Parts: sequence; structure tokens; C-alpha cells
Amino acid sequence: MYCSMKDAKVRLYVEHPLGEGQTIPLERDQAHYLFGVMRLGVGDAVALFNGRDGEWRCGVVEAGKRKGVLVCEAQTKPLQMPPDLWLIFAPIKKARTDFIVEKAAEMGAARIMPVQTDFTNSERIRQDRLQAHAVEAAEQCGGTFVPEVADLQKLDRVLADWPEGRQLMFCDEAEVGSAARLGAASGDQWAILIGPEGGFSPDERARLKSLPFAHVVSLGPRILRADTAAVAAMTIWQQALGDWG
Amino acid sequence: MYCSMKDAKVRLYVEHPLGEGQTIPLERDQAHYLFGVMRLGVGDAVALFNGRDGEWRCGVVEAGKRKGVLVCEAQTKPLQMPPDLWLIFAPIKKARTDFIVEKAAEMGAARIMPVQTDFTNSERIRQDRLQAHAVEAAEQCGGTFVPEVADLQKLDRVLADWPEGRQLMFCDEAEVGSAARLGAASGDQWAILIGPEGGFSPDERARLKSLPFAHVVSLGPRILRADTAAVAAMTIWQQALGDWG
Repeated sequence: MYCSMKDAKVRLYVEHPLGEGQTIPLERDQAHYLFGVMRLGVGDAVALFNGRDGEWRCGVVEAGKRKGVLVCEAQTKPLQMPPDLWLIFAPIKKARTDFIVEKAAEMGAARIMPVQTDFTNSERIRQDRLQAHAVEAAEQCGGTFVPEVADLQKLDRVLADWPEGRQLMFCDEAEVGSAARLGAASGDQWAILIGPEGGFSPDERARLKSLPFAHVVSLGPRILRADTAAVAAMTIWQQALGDWG
Repeated sequence: MYCSMKDAKVRLYVEHPLGEGQTIPLERDQAHYLFGVMRLGVGDAVALFNGRDGEWRCGVVEAGKRKGVLVCEAQTKPLQMPPDLWLIFAPIKKARTDFIVEKAAEMGAARIMPVQTDFTNSERIRQDRLQAHAVEAAEQCGGTFVPEVADLQKLDRVLADWPEGRQLMFCDEAEVGSAARLGAASGDQWAILIGPEGGFSPDERARLKSLPFAHVVSLGPRILRADTAAVAAMTIWQQALGDWG
């Protein structure tokens, strides 16, 4: 089912081991969220996950204004790792960047990498804020894994340091006649590169096309916003090579 | 390229015939947008489209506070019709509904149909506001066609009145083991149904599965927000049966 804010059991990401009988002390902002905002109290249940141990049903044993304690009762979901897929994109506007990070988390990216490109080399990000958005997307959509949001890097550097064995799918509207297909590509380790609104520079485009590990895919004849393009590209990949059955 | 707000030539949807030498009188809000907000003046160019005649470069001949006149100079894009695809969805939250309408327009829906389902039968919409969002998405993403946003109907009614020959793709997370594939389906006239956050009722699910024109498709093992699901579903369809090459 699509993730619903209404009637959702309360889910929270914690940086703490989870296991039967494990005691979880809450940080101030977590206590405020559970007891001040969501109005939970002693005896209520919360679903916790930490990105490693799946999801656990936990009972509230102490509920205060600025602190609290939960105890793990039973595992309710095993850890569901996404495929080994990186989502690389060029942030411009804050709101659109937030959407891209959320959708990348929903769609199963293992790692989210903001990059500066030739046309976007003065953009900046708040890595901590974007990481919080990825956590929130996982909390709201029932996820048990949270993708890491990397620090901003130059695309040139990411390509220069490219790890052996990882394939790259990039989407370039300038490719007239290319298909929305991954063709004969294979492999377990992949990355998807979504160019900036405004596109890649001619130098970047030439460089990308020359890379032996790069595969160009079309996203159709209409222009897409960057967050729409991210979901479309990830859908194509998940269908062809990922965990979409 | 992904649609960019920065450096975009000014594009405007008008409800007026377009053709060489055609004079276009502007309405008050259009004049305010072009001359007050975008600071254009006599001699500047604007790209106009009306959903029928493609895109035309038009010159400003009169620029006033509450009125203005443009003249069509040359066609810059032919009309690009989307496939005959309906996007049917269940609105809940206003912001999420706005996103779904915008993305449906970006992704090539010909018609956008908000419906009430068993779990969302008290929701309401502002059809005029949603139509304006579809227009805006087309303006911002270089489109020459604007999908119609229909009035809210009950899903039961839409299914009861289903036109002969149109196929339906619906996405149901309860289908364990179903693939993100359209399989052997074919045909020119289609609809995609995105269920509400909260899902279909058991009755609805049973009814949908019994329809001879319905095809169920999985959107993977992770829960998706409704606007993410809409883009993913439309990507699957466009790749398999649409105009994505």
C-alpha cells in the first residue's frame, strides 16, 4: 500500500542496537516527538528501526518531557536491504533537492550522492538536513534501511574515482533515438546519474559518453523535472536489474 | 534537458487560436505575469501554446498594466500529443494531489481523473485549481498539450461506465509475486489506476481483479508515496506501450 500518514503506527529511526529485551534510551527530540507530538504514553507501542536490525515493536516504559525509555518486544520486519544502487544528482533548488532525496530513499537507493556539475558548480547543500530527509522518508514509508547522503562532490571527482566494476546509467535528452532501455547491461553494482535542470555541458556529455562503464538511457520525448526524472530512471533500473520482480 | 526555471524563455498557455500573423489579446492576469512579473516589454518574445497548434514565438506589440497584445511570428514546435493514456488516482492531501497532477502532465497523461474510493469517499477537490496546475506543468516543461483534469467521480462509476476497448493497469501491493511488467498486454487506449494511500478496500480489490480489461502490476517491495507511485507506474507503461522509444 502507498504510505499513509493517517493511521500509521508510529515509526522512528534510532541509532541504537535493537534486539529482544533491549532497552532504548530516547534523545530529547525523540521524546518530544513521541510524547509531545504523537501523545504516546507508558504501555504504547512504537516501531523502531536502525538500518541494520529490521523493525522492532517496542513498548514505552518511561515517558517524560525531555526523555524516555523503550524496550524491544518482538521483531516485526526483517532488514530489507535495497540493491547496491547509487543515485547521483545535481542539486539546485532546496525544495526540489529535498524531493529527490526522499524519492531516492523510497525507490531503493543504497547511497545518495549530490554533485556539482559544470552548470551548477556554485550550488551548496546542507548534508545533515538532506540526511534527515532520507531518514524521514524511510520512517514514513515503512523502510528498515536508510540510504547514506554523501557530502557534495564535483562530478569530475566522482568519475575520476570511479570504483572498478560499478556501472553507470545516465539520462541524456540529447540522445535522439535512444531507448528507455538498459539493453544488454548487467552486474550487481550500479549508479544512476540525473543531470541538472539545464543539462550537462558539452564537455561533460562527451566525457560521459566515452566512459566504458556508462550506459545512456532516454526518459522519453517530454521534458521532466529532476525529481520526476529520478523516479523514472530508478523505475527503469529496478525493473530491468533491481528487485522489482 | 530537465525543465529549468532559470533562463527559461517565457512560456504561456492561451485559449486562443495561434497561426502566422495571428493577434493575441491578453487577459488581465496574463498581462500582469508577462509585464509585471517577468518584466517583458514591447519587442520581447514569448512562447505561446494552446494545446492544439504547437508552440509559437510571439512578439509583444502592446504592454500595459492590465492588458497587452502579442503577434504570432513563427511556429517553434509542432503539437506533440501524448499517448491516449488516462491517469486515475484518489486524492487525499492537497499538496500530494497537486504533485500527482503535475507529474501526470509531465509524464504524458492525456486525461487526469480524480476518483473517490471506498477509503476516501469524503475527499473533495478543486477541479479548477488542479487544471491550473496541469497548465503550469506544461508551461514549465516545454509542453504543447495540456491534459484535461476531470471532475471528481466515484471509482465505482468510472468502472461501471468503462469504455469498450480501453485497458486498465492498476498497481496493488497485495499481489505477492506479481511483476513490474505489462506482459502480453497491448492496445492503444489505456488507463493507469493509482490507489489511495491506505489502499483499496477488499471489495474494490476483488472487483478490480475480476475485470477482463484490468492488468495488475507490482511497483516493487518498498512502499511508495502516491506521487512516486504515479511516476513509476507511468514509466512502466510508457516504456512498454507508450512513446518512450
